[in-house]
Amino acid sequence: MSQPVIALYTDFGNTDPYVGQMHAALLTKALGTSVVDLHHYAPAFAPGPAGLLLEALLPFLPEQAVVVSVVDPGVGTDRGTLALWSRGHWLVGPDNGLFGPLLDEPDAVAYRLNVKGHEAASATFHGRDVFAPAAAELARGHRMVLGESVPHPVRLASRRDQIIYCDHYGNLMTGLQIPADTGYWLRVRDRDLSYARTFGDVAPGEPFWYGNSLGLVEVAVREDSARYALDAGEGTSVAWSPAQAQHPK
Amino acid sequence: MSQPVIALYTDFGNTDPYVGQMHAALLTKALGTSVVDLHHYAPAFAPGPAGLLLEALLPFLPEQAVVVSVVDPGVGTDRGTLALWSRGHWLVGPDNGLFGPLLDEPDAVAYRLNVKGHEAASATFHGRDVFAPAAAELARGHRMVLGESVPHPVRLASRRDQIIYCDHYGNLMTGLQIPADTGYWLRVRDRDLSYARTFGDVAPGEPFWYGNSLGLVEVAVREDSARYALDAGEGTSVAWSPAQAQHPK
Amino acid sequence: MSQPVIALYTDFGNTDPYVGQMHAALLTKALGTSVVDLHHYAPAFAPGPAGLLLEALLPFLPEQAVVVSVVDPGVGTDRGTLALWSRGHWLVGPDNGLFGPLLDEPDAVAYRLNVKGHEAASATFHGRDVFAPAAAELARGHRMVLGESVPHPVRLASRRDQIIYCDHYGNLMTGLQIPADTGYWLRVRDRDLSYARTFGDVAPGEPFWYGNSLGLVEVAVREDSARYALDAGEGTSVAWSPAQAQHPK
Repeated sequence: MSQPVIALYTDFGNTDPYVGQMHAALLTKALGTSVVDLHHYAPAFAPGPAGLLLEALLPFLPEQAVVVSVVDPGVGTDRGTLALWSRGHWLVGPDNGLFGPLLDEPDAVAYRLNVKGHEAASATFHGRDVFAPAAAELARGHRMVLGESVPHPVRLASRRDQIIYCDHYGNLMTGLQIPADTGYWLRVRDRDLSYARTFGDVAPGEPFWYGNSLGLVEVAVREDSARYALDAGEGTSVAWSPAQAQHPK
Repeated sequence: MSQPVIALYTDFGNTDPYVGQMHAALLTKALGTSVVDLHHYAPAFAPGPAGLLLEALLPFLPEQAVVVSVVDPGVGTDRGTLALWSRGHWLVGPDNGLFGPLLDEPDAVAYRLNVKGHEAASATFHGRDVFAPAAAELARGHRMVLGESVPHPVRLASRRDQIIYCDHYGNLMTGLQIPADTGYWLRVRDRDLSYARTFGDVAPGEPFWYGNSLGLVEVAVREDSARYALDAGEGTSVAWSPAQAQHPK
Repeated sequence: MSQPVIALYTDFGNTDPYVGQMHAALLTKALGTSVVDLHHYAPAFAPGPAGLLLEALLPFLPEQAVVVSVVDPGVGTDRGTLALWSRGHWLVGPDNGLFGPLLDEPDAVAYRLNVKGHEAASATFHGRDVFAPAAAELARGHRMVLGESVPHPVRLASRRDQIIYCDHYGNLMTGLQIPADTGYWLRVRDRDLSYARTFGDVAPGEPFWYGNSLGLVEVAVREDSARYALDAGEGTSVAWSPAQAQHPK
């Protein structure tokens, strides 16, 4: 059997001691496990878009990797916990809609977490005290952390037709999957953007849409920030343009 | 015997090539050791508050983890080095007061470092050239790096009644341990704040103090930045309010 | 045989999910390999200075470490790929001049990459889809990823007499190697700076040059930011001053 892998997906950022404490907890509970920092700038306090980005990242994880996912504005309230099996992975985190895009898979099944000492956990850091220890157990094949079945986990009305992530280059990732027909235009603010395969196929300064490396529609400007050039960011709506029959130029 | 663990605690940040070089040095010297990035935004150039935060993080490390701690404004001067055994951990770093809060433990004992090639070390990067190699030796059970005993390591007049760390949410961590009686008010600037168990127990916009996940008193504002709302930050004094008998509202 | 090591050197930053996906790809393809994040803030879009910094970092990597180097403004165009053997390391990345400083070593030999499924790779993320998988193969001693020999890899007219990296303290690293004679002055903007061994040897506020921990000439101001104090940054030219016979004070 290959070495178990645990992937961390949070909105904790990389500047505070929170991610380090999660690693320390995993070293204590799951020595011998490989831990990968998948992403710590998930859309903050926004389980809806964070779930869409997580869904897109999942195919790029090692098989059977256990994912600790913490975008959890309700920590310390009575929101529930979740261990979800979906697409061949265990996902562990809050029951707040974050896992919504993964609930309808044929293999999906959800449980509450049943972590020993859960009651003694801090009120504000379930990532370290509840989710990481549970993931460590699941990664080692122990299922005692699975509590009662959860037939109806929380769902959010997550919209795919919006910007769900803006990277540090200013590229704008939508939740839309790449359409078969790339002749469509994408409307962002009042601009209709046409498709290009990659940056090299457009002129500097020209905005365009393309299929990104996660299989999602993304908006960019060659040698510039689409965020600034288009005055668009996380939450901005996008739409396939009705003018698709006619070419912008 | 379980795999040795080395934890890194520095003020190097995550954007420069310094932490990467420490990892590379540890891979060379201590292949087979697990290295955890505990925190790289320790209070910069401030061994006093950095030591208080380190003390609070220590219980969350794996047993026997060796801690490389570098908050070292005096690197390149004649300040001494230190390997301190305290609370079941080796701590390696500069002798500048950083380890002050850990010196009075019953098991505490301190040594100078005696690193081969120490003389050839760079004048400005002892983290890579002195402390990481020494930690690698200690993690593997080799004590040849321990030099002469240091009966009186440097101490600083570290104050607990101040903000020692501000996280990226704007939450303000003090050096104060959580009191048994949570009826006290905490004075920050000219505000008297009452206790709440967690964010969910106060109204949006309301500042409060709570016991954080490290066991320290922390100040927060629900759905807002306490740093901005209270105009307070690292170094700001706090005090238990004399008005404790009477409730703020 | 010791455990294979792969080092990552990119301009991807630490806030986006790109580095995490590279780690996930390496866990899938090279489980059992140690992966070190050497640096993710290499000079962005600037293969020239990024190559000089990489050359300086190379001696601090474990022997035989395979380096994945991605500073690749031309990703998605028809720029070639490269696996370069130089100084006892495999370096994998784009053929855009990034490896220029390492091409003239006696042991240097360069190949195109021949990655299975290369054609199916995303147009915009060769770090994950081409370079990381190739490095995983090389780290495990498999040479099937080596394609045709490249007798003349791309070279850039990289200048050493400029600032190639500015760290978060505001220290300014040049591409110049430390001269044997430290009596020279270094001209930055209109200032002539004299040598000091380390920060402790100058007065607060005084700019100076010194030999940094990578063996390069660096400019700093004690207890201040040289970037701001000298109005200099990445790309600023420097020169050994003709006034070297006479001392600045």
